[in-house]
Amino acid sequence: MIVLRHVIGDELRRRRQDQGRTLRDVSAAAAVSLGYLSEVERGQKEASSELLAAICGALDVPLSDVMHSVTNHLVEAEHPRLAVHAN
Amino acid sequence: MIVLRHVIGDELRRRRQDQGRTLRDVSAAAAVSLGYLSEVERGQKEASSELLAAICGALDVPLSDVMHSVTNHLVEAEHPRLAVHAN
Repeated sequence: MIVLRHVIGDELRRRRQDQGRTLRDVSAAAAVSLGYLSEVERGQKEASSELLAAICGALDVPLSDVMHSVTNHLVEAEHPRLAVHAN
Repeated sequence: MIVLRHVIGDELRRRRQDQGRTLRDVSAAAAVSLGYLSEVERGQKEASSELLAAICGALDVPLSDVMHSVTNHLVEAEHPRLAVHAN
C-alpha cells in the first residue's frame, strides 16, 4: 500500500536538500523541533496540516506545489507503466 | 491560511455524495467509525495516511485521483485569479 506520509516526507526532504539546507535550519524557520521534522521527512510521523504549512513556508514553496509533486509520485506508484515520463 | 485537512475533507465528502452514498455506508466499507469519517469530512480531524487510504478504497477511487483534485483546489485557493477555468 502507498503511504501518503512517506511520499510527503520524501518530497519535503528532496526540496530541503535541493536548497542545500539543513534540518536545523528548516526546523528553526518552521518553528518545529528538529526531531519532529526529521520524523516527518522519514515518513514516521504524520504532519498536521498546520505543521505541513509551516514547513512549506520555511522552504518558501507553496503547499500546492509540494502536493502537485506528491500527486505525481502517487500516480507513478499506482500506475508504474505510465511513470516513465512522469518526471 | 489554507488548511490541507479542510480541502481533503471537502473532496472526500464530494466524492461520497457524488456516489449517492451515506456516511454509514462508506464508514462501514472503510472500517472506520461513522463519527471519525464525519469529522474528517468536516476538516475537524486529520486522517492518518492509512485511514485516508482506507476511505479512498471504500470509495473505490485511487488516492492519486483524490490528491489530484485536492491539489487543484489548493492552486485555486493560492492563486484565485488563475482559478476561473481550473475546474
